[in-house]
Amino acid sequence: MMSKQVVIIGGGAAGMSAAAKARRMDPALEIVVYERSGYVSYGACGFPYAIKGDIACVEDVVVRTPEQFAKQGIRALVRHEVRAIDPAARTVRVRDLSSGVEITDSWDELLLTAGGGAIRPPLPGADMPGVFTLRNVEDALAIQGWIAQHQPTRGVIIGGGYIGLEMAEALAAHGIALTVVERLPHLLPNLDPELAAHAQAELVRQQVEVRLSQAVEGLDGDACVRGVVVGGQTIPADIVILAVGVRPQVELARAARVALGPTGAIAVDDHQRTSVLHIWAAGDVAEAHHRVTGRPAWVPLGTTANKQGKVAGENIGGGDARFGGIVGTAVVKVFDLEAASSGLTEARARAEGFMVKTVSATANSRAHYMPGHQPIHVKLVYEEESRRLLGGQLIGREGVAKRVDVIAAALHGGWTVDELAELDLSYAPPFAPVWDPILVAANLARR
Amino acid sequence: MMSKQVVIIGGGAAGMSAAAKARRMDPALEIVVYERSGYVSYGACGFPYAIKGDIACVEDVVVRTPEQFAKQGIRALVRHEVRAIDPAARTVRVRDLSSGVEITDSWDELLLTAGGGAIRPPLPGADMPGVFTLRNVEDALAIQGWIAQHQPTRGVIIGGGYIGLEMAEALAAHGIALTVVERLPHLLPNLDPELAAHAQAELVRQQVEVRLSQAVEGLDGDACVRGVVVGGQTIPADIVILAVGVRPQVELARAARVALGPTGAIAVDDHQRTSVLHIWAAGDVAEAHHRVTGRPAWVPLGTTANKQGKVAGENIGGGDARFGGIVGTAVVKVFDLEAASSGLTEARARAEGFMVKTVSATANSRAHYMPGHQPIHVKLVYEEESRRLLGGQLIGREGVAKRVDVIAAALHGGWTVDELAELDLSYAPPFAPVWDPILVAANLARR
Repeated sequence: MMSKQVVIIGGGAAGMSAAAKARRMDPALEIVVYERSGYVSYGACGFPYAIKGDIACVEDVVVRTPEQFAKQGIRALVRHEVRAIDPAARTVRVRDLSSGVEITDSWDELLLTAGGGAIRPPLPGADMPGVFTLRNVEDALAIQGWIAQHQPTRGVIIGGGYIGLEMAEALAAHGIALTVVERLPHLLPNLDPELAAHAQAELVRQQVEVRLSQAVEGLDGDACVRGVVVGGQTIPADIVILAVGVRPQVELARAARVALGPTGAIAVDDHQRTSVLHIWAAGDVAEAHHRVTGRPAWVPLGTTANKQGKVAGENIGGGDARFGGIVGTAVVKVFDLEAASSGLTEARARAEGFMVKTVSATANSRAHYMPGHQPIHVKLVYEEESRRLLGGQLIGREGVAKRVDVIAAALHGGWTVDELAELDLSYAPPFAPVWDPILVAANLARR
Repeated sequence: MMSKQVVIIGGGAAGMSAAAKARRMDPALEIVVYERSGYVSYGACGFPYAIKGDIACVEDVVVRTPEQFAKQGIRALVRHEVRAIDPAARTVRVRDLSSGVEITDSWDELLLTAGGGAIRPPLPGADMPGVFTLRNVEDALAIQGWIAQHQPTRGVIIGGGYIGLEMAEALAAHGIALTVVERLPHLLPNLDPELAAHAQAELVRQQVEVRLSQAVEGLDGDACVRGVVVGGQTIPADIVILAVGVRPQVELARAARVALGPTGAIAVDDHQRTSVLHIWAAGDVAEAHHRVTGRPAWVPLGTTANKQGKVAGENIGGGDARFGGIVGTAVVKVFDLEAASSGLTEARARAEGFMVKTVSATANSRAHYMPGHQPIHVKLVYEEESRRLLGGQLIGREGVAKRVDVIAAALHGGWTVDELAELDLSYAPPFAPVWDPILVAANLARR
């Protein structure tokens, strides 16, 4: 009997987690990963810190190389692009981007983990040298190379989401004077406006200009980018980062008639099965069950990609694993601030049709008498009638990133704000006040 | 109609939280607090940091003064000791320790919040000058005064629990060469031995001598303490801290036939009622429902005292509040380490009769490629058959104190280790690896 062949399209976190798990489940599987870029198994979230200079070398974010996977019996082929899927014949057409040669490979199980692609808005001049998106190792190396070679002094970041703000910190570290242009009226869509305002204040404190509610009309330049046109004015720039978001790379799936969900990403069940038998999907290309709304959501994050990949790998390897869903937890460092959220913002909860109440509190990160304590701003969003927690946001200079995990746990449990207020959270003066900021906020909701 | 009179015995966290909450519930109540020491409403956990010098002044740990409470219509009388309770007559006998005058006061509702007292073992010489316990503001001031006046160079700390280790850090900051003597085979009874070993290594790294499994036989000295006798040898010392634990101050309650529970602290229901109608208890003097064991526990901590006090105050003020119980969450700073636990240790779980399994993992506090990442050691304890989480411990140089709150939430929810492994925890390279250390450990339990 021939051993079962598994083809994985995409060698990011989801694909390689799946490959490793499937291998552990079933040593007899033949596992091949086709990756379009030159690298597999990297932590893309580390790129801003490599560009900033916190990490010696961009390649340090690579967890394992194709050679290391080969030792596990996993063939990970970089610079190989899958061009088409034939679900009936159970084949893929693959082009070796180095040689241009195309081959056809067959599969018994196919896993789609092509990930998300950076959106390149159709702006005049968006493809000029000096204009970058940031999604893979090559992008990060290109930005590093540009900085080293051209020593830019003025930059514009288009998009004030988390990648945009991380890149602001990264470029500012090179002495580049920056403007962040955001189309929406506030930064960080994962936060409600009054919390996002603290991030804006931090950018201003760091000498970064922030332009809100402004759309970019085009990019100016000649051989290289020279500026960004906003409201008829040109902001001079010798480096521009496009950070307006990502979209799931579903073209192959759509062509193969794999069903997409309401979000536009690939619809999957809790086993990571798609609508087509023997085709699976995981990571940024796929939806996930959102435990707060009870509906599919598309929240492309490395944590979910790793977990879904592991579940897909276990099931492809003959197991019976389920992905428990997400609550949409995220944290971002904005210079010296930590901004975190889990679940739904007030705006999002209202858009989802919930009858919403909120409480906000500001409390210390440590006991009030301890040096170094910093204010943490907390906002909780809950359903009026049931009092069920729908989301929480925190922003402050310390103690935010992991505090949000308590909100994540409460959302996971489907708890009310009153149950949240009961939690026996840790306390010692150097680490927290006796009433943790989350409890302070939850107690306000109780009154 | 006369307004209802509330008498509160003890002006610590529980008593003053209750007073403030009862006042907000019912502006007509007459509320009197009798406090034996000279201060009310202080955060005792701050004393080591005041002695260390992190806080300018011991009195900074006081949250509110009697004068501030007076403005809320709460009479807080310091240096007033309640000598007896008459439950039938609904009176207390109170001595003004400044004048020596005794009065009888009557109550409609009586709240017992006398707290815990430091244990002074009956060692020869334990009452010599230079030997201190640490429980109230006066104790902290006395230690500060002794250090200023006598400039001790050698100290012994008797007891390796959290107060002992916090005091080691505090005294070391004054250049005092220290020995910690612990009767048990390991430090920090809230941790299992293999995790506590990291705290021991940190003390050694900080030049603190650690003597385990050794009992103190007595104290040497003349006008002042000169040494501590251990195993027939005298360790020279010109300052000694007795940190061998606390006990609930239940003498008044016992004399008034208020029932004590199996732990020796006052038995209370979830409304903070004692066995005697109209007598309530809260804080370190009372038991609490332990959500993991389902039985009463005595875990004297400021967080619980504040919560129970608030519940008692709300109920005394005519409300209907319930205390949700504890899971036994605690964290302590040991020089540059953070050591945290929630729920039951392996040792404790076995002693409670659980069939136990454990997993241990060491994982990074941040992404592996980020500078400054530190190992975090995690141990999870769970029930073999049900797979229900029973407890978790973490120790490391950063990112421990608030990570334990995820364990606390999981224990609160009664979740299995498998449910814990599903949590959507926050991730960004400066704050966590993509698999948070808690998830790494929980995933090991899944295999």
